Amino acid sequence: MDAVAARSGVHRTTVYRRWRDTGGLLADSLDAAREHPWEPPDTGSLLDDLVAINRQIVAALTEEPSITRALVAASFRSPAAAHALRSFWENRYARAAVAVERAVRRGEAVEDIDARTVLIASSAPIFYELVLMRSPVPEDIAERYARVGGAVATGRS
Amino acid sequence: MDAVAARSGVHRTTVYRRWRDTGGLLADSLDAAREHPWEPPDTGSLLDDLVAINRQIVAALTEEPSITRALVAASFRSPAAAHALRSFWENRYARAAVAVERAVRRGEAVEDIDARTVLIASSAPIFYELVLMRSPVPEDIAERYARVGGAVATGRS
Repeated sequence: MDAVAARSGVHRTTVYRRWRDTGGLLADSLDAAREHPWEPPDTGSLLDDLVAINRQIVAALTEEPSITRALVAASFRSPAAAHALRSFWENRYARAAVAVERAVRRGEAVEDIDARTVLIASSAPIFYELVLMRSPVPEDIAERYARVGGAVATGRS
Repeated sequence: MDAVAARSGVHRTTVYRRWRDTGGLLADSLDAAREHPWEPPDTGSLLDDLVAINRQIVAALTEEPSITRALVAASFRSPAAAHALRSFWENRYARAAVAVERAVRRGEAVEDIDARTVLIASSAPIFYELVLMRSPVPEDIAERYARVGGAVATGRS
């Protein structure tokens, strides 16, 4: 709340009057971010697209301070933050599905694959390790779990 | 804290005097649980072992009230709870590694597979969907992601 007041040059009471708590502020920030025209990387290979997405996630979770980690923490106290977080992620998975569709057209993924399952298999371990387990970040974490998503896409799971 | 006081028949001030906050109480509960002689299921097939482990995780995360969810929430406020949670999970993954070793001996998994990566690939999506995304539980969630772990074990990822 203080950082927002400082950056926008208003008194902190103005920020508190508008949002009341961090959960509400974060929820509105996420809603705004969801409107942002994010597109998944298009490297020409599904594996490299998944690696690039995972690197974005690792960057968002390890920057200091991490807004994403703050949002996750807030989601356990604030239903508004929990709802906003879920909408934001579902929106990102829906947008990223095009990477899997391109892979199907290139013959890198089986026809009837569920894009969301591929994307969750590739990205969920990153959130789990960095947010829930708070593990040290292995150098190859983005690649390691992108390969898992790639294996799912080929219908081998 | 109130539930612990009620169950143990002491006054709640006694519980607060011993633990001070929920994070400390939960941390000590987890440390005690870690001593509990948990063994992974031994069904004779890696896929079925992973399904059985995932079902245990789904049950722990969807029971009401869920101590695991309470612990995860507390881990964002209490470094003691975060540390206990990580130790507990690392201990469980270390114990579950035997399921992957048995699979290697049966020829269901490649020799040099990293057991922890298999187990994380199979279980992390469950934590992500149920704890972070708060998704509705798909009927086949345990099987869906156990298959992902199974694909990793065969070295296809």
